[in-house]
Amino acid sequence: MTGRGTLGVAVIGAGRMGADHVRRIHEVTSGARVAAVVDVDAERAKAVAARADGAPVHTDPVAAMAPSDVDAVLIASPGPAHEATLLAAFERGLPVLCEKPLTPDAAAALRVLEAERKLGRRRVQVGFMRRYDAEYVKLKALLNTGQLGRPLMLHNRHRNVASPPGWTSSMLISDSVAHETDVARWLLGHEITAVTVLRPTPSANAPDDLQDPQFVVFETDGGAVVDVEIFVNCGFGYQVQAEIVCERGTARLGDGHALVTNMAGRWGGTIAQDYTERFADAYDREIQAWVDATRHDEVTGPSVWDGYAAAAVCEAGVRALEEGGRVEVELLERPAMYGN
Amino acid sequence: MTGRGTLGVAVIGAGRMGADHVRRIHEVTSGARVAAVVDVDAERAKAVAARADGAPVHTDPVAAMAPSDVDAVLIASPGPAHEATLLAAFERGLPVLCEKPLTPDAAAALRVLEAERKLGRRRVQVGFMRRYDAEYVKLKALLNTGQLGRPLMLHNRHRNVASPPGWTSSMLISDSVAHETDVARWLLGHEITAVTVLRPTPSANAPDDLQDPQFVVFETDGGAVVDVEIFVNCGFGYQVQAEIVCERGTARLGDGHALVTNMAGRWGGTIAQDYTERFADAYDREIQAWVDATRHDEVTGPSVWDGYAAAAVCEAGVRALEEGGRVEVELLERPAMYGN
Amino acid sequence: MTGRGTLGVAVIGAGRMGADHVRRIHEVTSGARVAAVVDVDAERAKAVAARADGAPVHTDPVAAMAPSDVDAVLIASPGPAHEATLLAAFERGLPVLCEKPLTPDAAAALRVLEAERKLGRRRVQVGFMRRYDAEYVKLKALLNTGQLGRPLMLHNRHRNVASPPGWTSSMLISDSVAHETDVARWLLGHEITAVTVLRPTPSANAPDDLQDPQFVVFETDGGAVVDVEIFVNCGFGYQVQAEIVCERGTARLGDGHALVTNMAGRWGGTIAQDYTERFADAYDREIQAWVDATRHDEVTGPSVWDGYAAAAVCEAGVRALEEGGRVEVELLERPAMYGN
Amino acid sequence: MTGRGTLGVAVIGAGRMGADHVRRIHEVTSGARVAAVVDVDAERAKAVAARADGAPVHTDPVAAMAPSDVDAVLIASPGPAHEATLLAAFERGLPVLCEKPLTPDAAAALRVLEAERKLGRRRVQVGFMRRYDAEYVKLKALLNTGQLGRPLMLHNRHRNVASPPGWTSSMLISDSVAHETDVARWLLGHEITAVTVLRPTPSANAPDDLQDPQFVVFETDGGAVVDVEIFVNCGFGYQVQAEIVCERGTARLGDGHALVTNMAGRWGGTIAQDYTERFADAYDREIQAWVDATRHDEVTGPSVWDGYAAAAVCEAGVRALEEGGRVEVELLERPAMYGN
Repeated sequence: MTGRGTLGVAVIGAGRMGADHVRRIHEVTSGARVAAVVDVDAERAKAVAARADGAPVHTDPVAAMAPSDVDAVLIASPGPAHEATLLAAFERGLPVLCEKPLTPDAAAALRVLEAERKLGRRRVQVGFMRRYDAEYVKLKALLNTGQLGRPLMLHNRHRNVASPPGWTSSMLISDSVAHETDVARWLLGHEITAVTVLRPTPSANAPDDLQDPQFVVFETDGGAVVDVEIFVNCGFGYQVQAEIVCERGTARLGDGHALVTNMAGRWGGTIAQDYTERFADAYDREIQAWVDATRHDEVTGPSVWDGYAAAAVCEAGVRALEEGGRVEVELLERPAMYGN
Repeated sequence: MTGRGTLGVAVIGAGRMGADHVRRIHEVTSGARVAAVVDVDAERAKAVAARADGAPVHTDPVAAMAPSDVDAVLIASPGPAHEATLLAAFERGLPVLCEKPLTPDAAAALRVLEAERKLGRRRVQVGFMRRYDAEYVKLKALLNTGQLGRPLMLHNRHRNVASPPGWTSSMLISDSVAHETDVARWLLGHEITAVTVLRPTPSANAPDDLQDPQFVVFETDGGAVVDVEIFVNCGFGYQVQAEIVCERGTARLGDGHALVTNMAGRWGGTIAQDYTERFADAYDREIQAWVDATRHDEVTGPSVWDGYAAAAVCEAGVRALEEGGRVEVELLERPAMYGN
Repeated sequence: MTGRGTLGVAVIGAGRMGADHVRRIHEVTSGARVAAVVDVDAERAKAVAARADGAPVHTDPVAAMAPSDVDAVLIASPGPAHEATLLAAFERGLPVLCEKPLTPDAAAALRVLEAERKLGRRRVQVGFMRRYDAEYVKLKALLNTGQLGRPLMLHNRHRNVASPPGWTSSMLISDSVAHETDVARWLLGHEITAVTVLRPTPSANAPDDLQDPQFVVFETDGGAVVDVEIFVNCGFGYQVQAEIVCERGTARLGDGHALVTNMAGRWGGTIAQDYTERFADAYDREIQAWVDATRHDEVTGPSVWDGYAAAAVCEAGVRALEEGGRVEVELLERPAMYGN
Repeated sequence: MTGRGTLGVAVIGAGRMGADHVRRIHEVTSGARVAAVVDVDAERAKAVAARADGAPVHTDPVAAMAPSDVDAVLIASPGPAHEATLLAAFERGLPVLCEKPLTPDAAAALRVLEAERKLGRRRVQVGFMRRYDAEYVKLKALLNTGQLGRPLMLHNRHRNVASPPGWTSSMLISDSVAHETDVARWLLGHEITAVTVLRPTPSANAPDDLQDPQFVVFETDGGAVVDVEIFVNCGFGYQVQAEIVCERGTARLGDGHALVTNMAGRWGGTIAQDYTERFADAYDREIQAWVDATRHDEVTGPSVWDGYAAAAVCEAGVRALEEGGRVEVELLERPAMYGN
């Protein structure tokens, strides 16, 4: 496709996230249009497509990729379905934005990695949207200036109001801490080499049998120590904070002092209640960046390697949670096409 | 035009602001395209148009409005040229986004108001972009909940690093405080009835003969008192802050605690250095809101009445600056089509 | 008295403030003891003295100053009684800490000034305790470094939860803004030359007939503009804030971010509910500083001149409130013994 | 001694801390006086005593305790000397404030504990001054209200500008983290049961061979997880921060937003450069509380048990640092006289 035309995007998956991306591409993103909406539930796909001027609807991702006005694929289906869709897109040579997780486990991620390597060029941007959040972007830029010196530690807080039904203790690692896995790797430029998980007495507000909160410690090949508080039934808000400690200073994000009120004996402000509120702009920027790059025939942002590394770290994390102690992370050697 | 097509926008004026809007419509805004770029300087127009896939170039705004793929007009030319362009757009029935000021003086604003009234419907959105800034939007929403009670006072700070060459004492009122004029009217829902301007000893960092800073006090027909510190050579950053004091509490915006560092004996963060940095998102939202409304054949946002009221208050403010004392503001009765 | 002995203090007035000072001298201050407690109500004096190991009790201030173990006088009686007590202390050569206001009006303050001039040396420290508050002290020190450059404007907020019974509109100036009068003179090193008072529509939470809030503007002989929001029925807390705007930067105090909580959808902290909470440390330091200086036979801190200037400005302020418009402040020439 | 008389204090140790306490008792504390100054270096003792109106000087702590005007003992000598002085004070029945550490190791602490138990009543307050810091006190009070629910995690930051000469890796635990040991036990009301120490790559600004920073994780018998960043060559300031995470919210102290400036493109404030600046008020309150309690023949504040527990945790911490892995803490059963 040329720079002038708009990018036709097939959106795979019409659940909460897919529907939000359809709205985004239709109403927010510049230079893109919804070319297809796919869901195993045709009615759901139809309802979502109707809000985007009635884009064509499919139940089969492969069929959705066939029409000539489909220029790219956005995967927002459940994790286990990602691998097949990715491979199908590779066959058709279509660029992909794949929501996290790339795949549910490291073995599947490796198969995708292998397939992309055979293509000889990157086709996939993985949906780690925090890399597009204004505060994380500023923090990364600040680190890049070198003013703070070398990073030594990274402290993270990740809190949700309440966990959805069916949430399990290992999902605190594989779904939630997965974000910090990517953030740590990206900010530090290190790979994670070991994981330890500490288990405080669970909150009385957590469902029975859910180990919530957890305190996760990463070690990295650059000698940094990273800690993550994950607490998915904190009750008071959705809160993502990070402080990086470097040789000459620290930087902290996520305090969010936008609008301060004085009322009824208290000063302060409101806390976002979910991730769509906190990261709405990050999602907008993520999709815009993907559309812009794709229209210039480029692939940028988090790669299949990043998706694979996150999966491998999360697998080690889940083992550390279940077995106790310190679990080492085993990674392949990084292929040259994914930089270093 | 229909909801599906993209909105063709003729951008009048290819200076700093016009060029930025061309970039915005081309790269950021969803559902719009640059249909023409107009500037008295054809070379400048050409250079700007080149960055938007070579949109057609004109030196005459009227000629630019003629082609059938021009659906709307964005006026970013110097203030004295606005009136003629607005009237020309009215003749062709085109919707307009007009950068502030609507016109340089209240008399011209009244002529535009009269012309729009004859059309019998609103055609113009005036470019008071602060109404689209996330913090101001939150503040307005908070006021609308009624939690804080009735507003009594509004304190404003408006600081620039340094004034551009040729800036005069009266421009601190008519160009800078013009924003607080609109913000105060919008947040309070009051009209401004009187202006007093106090003149501190000018800063040694201000150019000779420039009365900078100034301290401006508005009174409103709802009994509120509004103060504005305007300081255009403060040296340290671009800073816009507001605190509204109500019967049951206060709310304050503009502290901007995003990324906090500890370094070299100090904690804190950076201050934006100009309005494009501070209000980039507000401009994005303003243009998107205008495009969205226009595609639905609606006109929303600040009206010609708001442009006229700002001009009338600023005229009184300049008189108060020059003559001293308290100057009353005389406004026409508000036409029904502009609500109340 | 010598440096080793403890300073015997006669406390005149056993109301809320006097009782608190008795407690302070007995339990907090180093190097001082309560040598007498005086009140027109002997029972009240007795009750207060009992908490200080039963110090002697008097109903007449002059009688209380007679014993040889009384080394100094602290006046915390109602304002109209101050003049006579001050003159009595002058006759006995006793050093005095006099709570604000020095006297209820400028004429009485001038008589005290004249009496102290005849003594040829300062005997009185006036109780403007904000000069001893840690934040104001830091602000003054920062200004003294010259880093911020010359001060141009000073913005003040002064808020109380609710006004006591019997509070009148003019007391907002003479009792409350009196503090900002001193703070402005001290921080800026200027005298105040004119006062304007704006009258927002009163809050529905203010008692009938009380003009609350008020917005007060001072002009100074150094060319600065000072504004004060005084709002004594703000409902939410006791809050004192100040921002000084200088040629190269600004400094702001009173935000009080000590303990920050996240709870129930909000981040933030508590606001003090009255001045004893906010300024407890300032009172401790004020009394300690007075005791320390007195034991070295020195008089420091706010002087009778400062008390007189505050009275004169407040008188002009009350006139500006009642008559509207701008009222000029007339001050005597400053006697040499009060510095310049 | 009676409530009216002043408490005569023998200060043992005239180094930096002892000299500061002599100044404090002489100039700041109410109801106490310096009755003796002791140091092995008689000249140093003399110089310090001279600043307190020439209090008597000794080189032997036991001799200093003999005179009848010595009512209490403040121990600020090096840690290894504490045990003997404590036992001597016990023999004379004198109440003691003992600077931290109580003793250099848990075994010595146990001997002191045993000796105090034989007396059958508490005689010692240990100098964990953070329990007297206004922010920690507020945090403890907030926890006691139960509003936040049960505590689950406690995050701590402890940073110094630079380590003194001779500082060793284990001193980061035994001298610095010792404070967090006490803070965690006191805030949570738990005993610490295990310690893990992570070792980031040392900062290039740390002396050779110093493991700085360290990241320490405590587990408690109440099921809480506590983490401590200790970084004694952070370069930018002295900073102590804590966030407690409870079932219904969190509370954070140590951000210290007192005076905020805008200058040179940055907003923010200064960071204290050492503990005497940050905790000056806490030391004042600690000594005053000890003097007040002692004059009423009471012993309050951190006990010998607290000193013993801190020593035992620090010993385990040093082992965890040196050997790696998780080290369990073995504590005696808590004697009844130390509450539970």
